[in-house]
Amino acid sequence: MKTFFSEGQLAHNPTHEISDGALQPAVEIPARAEIVRDHVAAAGLGPVLAPDEFGLDPLKRVHDPAYLDFLASFWTRWTNAGRSGEAFPFVWPVRGLRTEPAPDHIDGLLGRFSFDAGTPMGEHTFAAARDSANAALSAARLVAGGEQAAFALCRPPGHHAAADYYGGYCFLNNAAIAAQWLIDAGAERVAVLDVDYHHGNGTQSIFYERADVLFLSIHADPREEYPYFLGHAEETGAGAGAGFTANYPLELGADWTIWSAALEASLERIARHRPDTLIVSLGLDPYERDPISKFRLTSDDFTRMGARLAAAGLPTVFVMEGGYAVDALGVNCVNALAGFAGQRG
Amino acid sequence: MKTFFSEGQLAHNPTHEISDGALQPAVEIPARAEIVRDHVAAAGLGPVLAPDEFGLDPLKRVHDPAYLDFLASFWTRWTNAGRSGEAFPFVWPVRGLRTEPAPDHIDGLLGRFSFDAGTPMGEHTFAAARDSANAALSAARLVAGGEQAAFALCRPPGHHAAADYYGGYCFLNNAAIAAQWLIDAGAERVAVLDVDYHHGNGTQSIFYERADVLFLSIHADPREEYPYFLGHAEETGAGAGAGFTANYPLELGADWTIWSAALEASLERIARHRPDTLIVSLGLDPYERDPISKFRLTSDDFTRMGARLAAAGLPTVFVMEGGYAVDALGVNCVNALAGFAGQRG
Repeated sequence: MKTFFSEGQLAHNPTHEISDGALQPAVEIPARAEIVRDHVAAAGLGPVLAPDEFGLDPLKRVHDPAYLDFLASFWTRWTNAGRSGEAFPFVWPVRGLRTEPAPDHIDGLLGRFSFDAGTPMGEHTFAAARDSANAALSAARLVAGGEQAAFALCRPPGHHAAADYYGGYCFLNNAAIAAQWLIDAGAERVAVLDVDYHHGNGTQSIFYERADVLFLSIHADPREEYPYFLGHAEETGAGAGAGFTANYPLELGADWTIWSAALEASLERIARHRPDTLIVSLGLDPYERDPISKFRLTSDDFTRMGARLAAAGLPTVFVMEGGYAVDALGVNCVNALAGFAGQRG
Repeated sequence: MKTFFSEGQLAHNPTHEISDGALQPAVEIPARAEIVRDHVAAAGLGPVLAPDEFGLDPLKRVHDPAYLDFLASFWTRWTNAGRSGEAFPFVWPVRGLRTEPAPDHIDGLLGRFSFDAGTPMGEHTFAAARDSANAALSAARLVAGGEQAAFALCRPPGHHAAADYYGGYCFLNNAAIAAQWLIDAGAERVAVLDVDYHHGNGTQSIFYERADVLFLSIHADPREEYPYFLGHAEETGAGAGAGFTANYPLELGADWTIWSAALEASLERIARHRPDTLIVSLGLDPYERDPISKFRLTSDDFTRMGARLAAAGLPTVFVMEGGYAVDALGVNCVNALAGFAGQRG
């Protein structure tokens, strides 16, 4: 299986984040990608290739142009305002407050285009996020061209980013951008299965009213976990998309027995969708020793996950999402991919 | 003029806040109220009286019961979660995200019931906010009983707090609670004039669809200043309240010439409303040396402001809001109140 990764993705290098009400060391760091890259190479899984440059057009198919303009101009605006260092938003347009007219002030823009206070932005964030999206697009194109599977080593991750806001360490929704690209390239139906510990609120919101892209997510119950405000079982899509979203919120502490039951249910729903391609939003944080998560999958369970996904028999694009137990990310990621490749032969 | 103030209001004593993307020393601190209390006493403006206890009923007339339950139970939930120290929210239900079902986790609840990351909550926050609201209610009752004017030395402030969310250092909307109490006590019409440097988004949202409470605000243009997402001139009320909101956003750097023109326009609109009582949300941060604001009113301008308000000839309840140039708060507040009292004789 080929892997796509660009060294440019490492340029987004936050030092701190705001979480649990305090300034803490950042957990979404370049080392996450480096250890996965190194393990993929060491395991002989296949070549690690530089992604192609797809430009802004595939991003505009998923994200609001004003949001992309904000991301592109952020650093200039930030430094023009006399600021330096990492930016954090601190006020949001919740219910009753207005998104339009968009503020002129950078602090207002930061809140206008985000949904949390925990996602630092810096000088190289947009460039790194674009490289990350290019990795997803390159993997999608390879699979659309007939390859059985490919791995986009995306970082920064993407699944919390919506059409016009960032958060949860995510800026561009890599999985959604890949899914839309596949549709635009001729796929009739795509399925996105999100196995990250946290609900993929961005991906869900992007496709919520569409029937061509089925979105499924296995995650910690949002009553108890970030992102708190989306990911309930009763969210099943709307309008033309009614029935094309499926959420499997699980209790904290869920182990493979509980988790794999949700996986089986997901695969049944995917089979009924008959997608041309399956995109797996591969979060590695269901892992038992992840520092900010509370599921109990073992490293061997990731092998089982990969094998079970392979048995679905679909062209598959793996897109990396979260996972913060840095030392174990390489092993767990390779286990999932090798489990898949081994099963598919 | 009588002043209402309780020492209990000092118990909310934050040490830090999150603003401009970093953890900074808190600016909404007990010393703000202490210096105003001391200057009011030293100026011989009138007695400083302890407010009466009005209980929860007047708060429920303005705030959502679930929000009040959250404020009341916050510290127990916070400490039960193993947390200590000040709480800051870090994720919000912006567009597309759901407020219901409300999260069970305290971090989710903090975001569910707030709109910014800069407002620390602690063990005594709700008690202090209730005392602050009692000061506003006591002043309102005095004026309803025939007194010409009264001063509620409210702190924490209130005008950014909406029916079901806190932010901008505000938890209970003291001015709105007083306005509603006056209506419930028989007033046909009330006007709330907000002269704080920042738009009174909470008060506006509470009364936006009502014709009995006219809301007016003179403030920094939200395109350039907090709260960024409300306070534009084109917001004039909705439904039954159409025409009963008036915003006067001013450019940064506005001085008395510019500011007082907006005051004159406000007073004309108030005169047409023929309110039984005028409530003045008395922010002291239009002051030229306020550390977080950019208007240029002098200490003498606050005397002029008070005198001009008195000339409107209305029973008047002053409710303190923001203002962070701590050393000057006493002088500027007394100037406004003495300017009013001197004009009214």
